[in-house]
Amino acid sequence: MKRIEVIQNIMEANETIAGRNQQLLDRHRVFAINIMSSPGGGKTSLIVQTMARLKGRLKIGVIEGDVASTVDAEKVQGEARAVVQINTRNMPESCSLMAAMIESALNEMPLGDIDLILIENVGNLICPSEFILGEHKRVVISSLPEGDDKPTKYPLIFVDADAVIINKMDLLPYLDFDIAAFRGSVSGLNPEAEIFQVSCKTGEGMEGWCSWVLEQVGSHATER
Amino acid sequence: MKRIEVIQNIMEANETIAGRNQQLLDRHRVFAINIMSSPGGGKTSLIVQTMARLKGRLKIGVIEGDVASTVDAEKVQGEARAVVQINTRNMPESCSLMAAMIESALNEMPLGDIDLILIENVGNLICPSEFILGEHKRVVISSLPEGDDKPTKYPLIFVDADAVIINKMDLLPYLDFDIAAFRGSVSGLNPEAEIFQVSCKTGEGMEGWCSWVLEQVGSHATER
Repeated sequence: MKRIEVIQNIMEANETIAGRNQQLLDRHRVFAINIMSSPGGGKTSLIVQTMARLKGRLKIGVIEGDVASTVDAEKVQGEARAVVQINTRNMPESCSLMAAMIESALNEMPLGDIDLILIENVGNLICPSEFILGEHKRVVISSLPEGDDKPTKYPLIFVDADAVIINKMDLLPYLDFDIAAFRGSVSGLNPEAEIFQVSCKTGEGMEGWCSWVLEQVGSHATER
Repeated sequence: MKRIEVIQNIMEANETIAGRNQQLLDRHRVFAINIMSSPGGGKTSLIVQTMARLKGRLKIGVIEGDVASTVDAEKVQGEARAVVQINTRNMPESCSLMAAMIESALNEMPLGDIDLILIENVGNLICPSEFILGEHKRVVISSLPEGDDKPTKYPLIFVDADAVIINKMDLLPYLDFDIAAFRGSVSGLNPEAEIFQVSCKTGEGMEGWCSWVLEQVGSHATER
């Protein structure tokens, strides 16, 4: 009983802080996207490629969540207006970012000078589905080498996603991945989710994804 | 404080049950290997290929850990002496197998008729590193498409591994993966770890891995 009570308290506290984060972001007209995937699914590459394509159109900040290391923060440093690294190794939930970590990160960022924050969550298809951060949209990347059964095996993260990105399309000729089956599984769990097929390596499909991002940021700005 | 205390209790309880599991296994001269990787890293394929190669030499049982679905259990059913599926979706730690789940699974298995149990952990590089299950050896699979920086970003799971399998070697020509850098990172964290380069698709390198498994099972049996 004790354990369940504690978990519930953590979830409630997380939601309260996430709500506060979103208010802070909205006050500064900053849009935030939470990017989730397995380890090596392509979160950092997507962020780097998105920043390169939206250069001059959006001022982008990045929050990097990793268990350990600053490998990814170094990769995104070049184009970002601001980068904050969060290492979760010694935190109570090392397997996901949580709203309190984002609250600290936002305090370090020049919010008045940012239009969009891309949050790279910890590489994991399970824990991040349980914690909202205050983001406006949730995006899951699923890469071809992981196999087309991931929505069936890790349903929760797909159920709550606003967009699903099928990454590493350049490897399609070398893998047994059934795109139609994957899209069908995602739509079965979440008919509203936008699905993009991209290769962050070759640039294939990146235009559609970037248009979607621009559209989301634009409609958020006019709402305020 | 409360949270930390509860976590500590869970870890302690887990270790106690894991010890009990290992005693039960030893009493029946059953060897157990805990297989961990990211989602889609190749745990199920490794199990299927290992069973096919060791057919007639070892009687193998499988415990399948998944958040949801029985997709993997169905794949291994053919060759296994017994298969138990654990779905962690509604359990307190859905992101990893825990010793108590294995204890229940072992109760369902004909231990007198099994030499080796292959435990497929939940697809995750973080949580499974925190929970021992009662296994004799811990194996991490890291697949080429995940990138060569995984030991740096998820160090804990590599520190405790007895063997590290580099899987999907067939994709090497299409990826930027530095084998020497990866092996160097693993050895830096864990100089004792055996490293195998395999492709579960083409069968490349499977002999070395299977010899290692046979050797481990053999020396365990003579110890008793």
